[in-house]
Amino acid sequence: SGLILNVVSLFAPLTPLAIIAKKRDQGELDAAEIETMIDGFVGGTIPDYQMSAWAMAVLCRGMSADETAALTRAMLASGQQLQRATDRPRIDKHSTGGLGDKTSLILAPLLACFDFDVPMLSGRGLGITGGTLDKLEAYPGYNSQLSQPQIADQLRRVGCVISGATDELAPADRRLYSLRDVTGTVPSIPLITSSILSKKLAARLDALIVDVKFGSAAFMRDLPRARELAESLRATGQRLGLTTRTLLSDMNQPLGRMVGNACEANEAVAVLESGGPSDVRHLSVRLAAEILLSQRRYASLDTAQQAVLSMLDSGQPRQRLEAMITSQGGQFFQRLPTAPAYEVCAAGSGWVQAIDGQQLGMTVIHLGGGRSRLGDTIDPSVGLEMLVRVGDAIEPRQPLVRIFARSAQAAEAVTPALLAAICIGSHPVAPLPLLADN
Amino acid sequence: SGLILNVVSLFAPLTPLAIIAKKRDQGELDAAEIETMIDGFVGGTIPDYQMSAWAMAVLCRGMSADETAALTRAMLASGQQLQRATDRPRIDKHSTGGLGDKTSLILAPLLACFDFDVPMLSGRGLGITGGTLDKLEAYPGYNSQLSQPQIADQLRRVGCVISGATDELAPADRRLYSLRDVTGTVPSIPLITSSILSKKLAARLDALIVDVKFGSAAFMRDLPRARELAESLRATGQRLGLTTRTLLSDMNQPLGRMVGNACEANEAVAVLESGGPSDVRHLSVRLAAEILLSQRRYASLDTAQQAVLSMLDSGQPRQRLEAMITSQGGQFFQRLPTAPAYEVCAAGSGWVQAIDGQQLGMTVIHLGGGRSRLGDTIDPSVGLEMLVRVGDAIEPRQPLVRIFARSAQAAEAVTPALLAAICIGSHPVAPLPLLADN
Repeated sequence: SGLILNVVSLFAPLTPLAIIAKKRDQGELDAAEIETMIDGFVGGTIPDYQMSAWAMAVLCRGMSADETAALTRAMLASGQQLQRATDRPRIDKHSTGGLGDKTSLILAPLLACFDFDVPMLSGRGLGITGGTLDKLEAYPGYNSQLSQPQIADQLRRVGCVISGATDELAPADRRLYSLRDVTGTVPSIPLITSSILSKKLAARLDALIVDVKFGSAAFMRDLPRARELAESLRATGQRLGLTTRTLLSDMNQPLGRMVGNACEANEAVAVLESGGPSDVRHLSVRLAAEILLSQRRYASLDTAQQAVLSMLDSGQPRQRLEAMITSQGGQFFQRLPTAPAYEVCAAGSGWVQAIDGQQLGMTVIHLGGGRSRLGDTIDPSVGLEMLVRVGDAIEPRQPLVRIFARSAQAAEAVTPALLAAICIGSHPVAPLPLLADN
Repeated sequence: SGLILNVVSLFAPLTPLAIIAKKRDQGELDAAEIETMIDGFVGGTIPDYQMSAWAMAVLCRGMSADETAALTRAMLASGQQLQRATDRPRIDKHSTGGLGDKTSLILAPLLACFDFDVPMLSGRGLGITGGTLDKLEAYPGYNSQLSQPQIADQLRRVGCVISGATDELAPADRRLYSLRDVTGTVPSIPLITSSILSKKLAARLDALIVDVKFGSAAFMRDLPRARELAESLRATGQRLGLTTRTLLSDMNQPLGRMVGNACEANEAVAVLESGGPSDVRHLSVRLAAEILLSQRRYASLDTAQQAVLSMLDSGQPRQRLEAMITSQGGQFFQRLPTAPAYEVCAAGSGWVQAIDGQQLGMTVIHLGGGRSRLGDTIDPSVGLEMLVRVGDAIEPRQPLVRIFARSAQAAEAVTPALLAAICIGSHPVAPLPLLADN
């Protein structure tokens, strides 16, 4: 009596249950079946418990390129598309998420200076990686909830916007992502691909560069998986008519020195002032150059990168960032105030073998600078400044990390975790290359 | 900003989300983690959407023997256990579900006659296979919802009971099965194993024989998967101290001639009167003999089967069935009335190549004899009598099926589906063996 009804008519469309079973049994879903799932979920006829089972089946069994494209199309079709604002090409940079990644604050104004429209529609930080919106909200008064007309208006006036994704664009992605987040179904290449690209397609981009992170503090722990995601993004982008380039960048240690909201914003401004850490600077220049190449503005990576460096040196991108922040109601500071600094020093000597980004991120959350759950308020002034990188030689009592904390007690409370996160061993270690081949 | 929090403390127990992720990533769950899932689900702290994602991860990634045993234990521990009623060994026969399987009506009284207590706690039919309770409810007044004291009392007086599982026994299984049924997570060997055995352990059996069905009209379409389930049932039974034997029986065509509630009950009574189709008779005798062997009542399968045949011929099991039905408030009929009969005849000649049990089962549902959803009322008098079996030679206009239907129109409506379900080809085909090696 345990036998379930499992009769497939050749004529009637499959039910959601039969579609789940088909994917579970390694079948390839057609576009209509994928639409049934997405439309039913958004329309409320498919309950969360069926959608999460389907997402887990997709995660375990994978999706073909056709399926991934169909899923992206179905999620795009679930909402509106961002209206055109100017005649300029519309481009964007996306990152799969990494600790200390403040490149969005650099890329948006930098690319706007090259006569692109840059509508960066971003998410909140949840978990160890701070969100771009949280970094910008360190500027008092910054409005990260622009309406579609406000976005269009700012694109016309300033050329770049960094704001929260509006409810009208790819609502299926927002609902599905919330469910994936609580059901262990986030790390699936087709689901990540369709989540990223459906939102970017809804923003009507002409070109996209995705910074795919790999390493201990990234989604994709290992390079082969990151490479697979990059390939899926490029292939799906091409099928849907969105020029998509990818870079693979290392996330086995934080990007730059700063981790935290105000201090990361300050570091981004430093790069726009031709300073800042070389890795942030190098990655930002390369990301911008890739977009310029994709738009055939320059003939080689070298000339494109030279042009980006000259643009940075001109000071215009720095002014453009200020204009963007001011336009969105924020009060710009060249350097935002940070909480009092406390140093953590090495006990012994050796070489930095590895840095545990998950631990560092947890530390920032404990200091009050990140969210454990949606709706938590955050303190932008707290954070970390990393004084060493993997491969550095360490002397006893050498400062390793500077903690920006509200009190000495708060700093002391996280010190053991920080010492544990920076693994110092007796063998020399090579520094980590920033980029890997696609 | 898409990176989720995924920090595993070495000291704190894993959260449900981390347990889902561990299984998703092919990890082996320990007993405490499995208890977290089952207890949280039953206690209402784990929502359906997390449980269904976990179930799909279990289905896709599998479970070790240790995990399956821990899951069975956790489900058993979710409820009470059936009180002891007599000093007699307590045994049961379970079937994984098949079309026309009426052996429970034969085995319960037959084994009671061998001085066993047989508390068969059964489910409702859902889908193409009729439930044992539905077959017994064809006897007017039959009460299939006995309380625990009523079950104990009837075991003392009659020795056998066929009733619905009470809410107190393995409630986790009932809740999980309902969720699996609507999320495509039924056909998982560890989930099926723990579902069956947790209920049987809650009934405090001394021995169990499971009839594992394979073929086109069974859960397990192919023999290797059925064999895997049988092995899992025996191994998990052994770990939990329940002697579990298995048979593998063919479900590429209905068992016996009758499919439907009243007509199947009649066929069971015919077997108890030393008649009935040989396959039903043979399977019932073999199932009973396996229990006798497991309890060391006889030295060989041969002598055990001889004893069972003699017992059938004595007429006592037939009287015991009547006593059980009467004790549960039912009015016994030697032959229950069935709806008017209509014959479906062959168009051409040839040999029966295959019989599509899924189609036959759907036909019975269309006639009103099965449920599409829980709560549907059913008409016990409708059904089918199969007049041919795979391998039979067919002459033109030879009757293939007798339909018991409320009207000629109802019979005509299902005739095309029945003709399509019986595939007649031009090549001779060997009959199907009833049993396969374990």
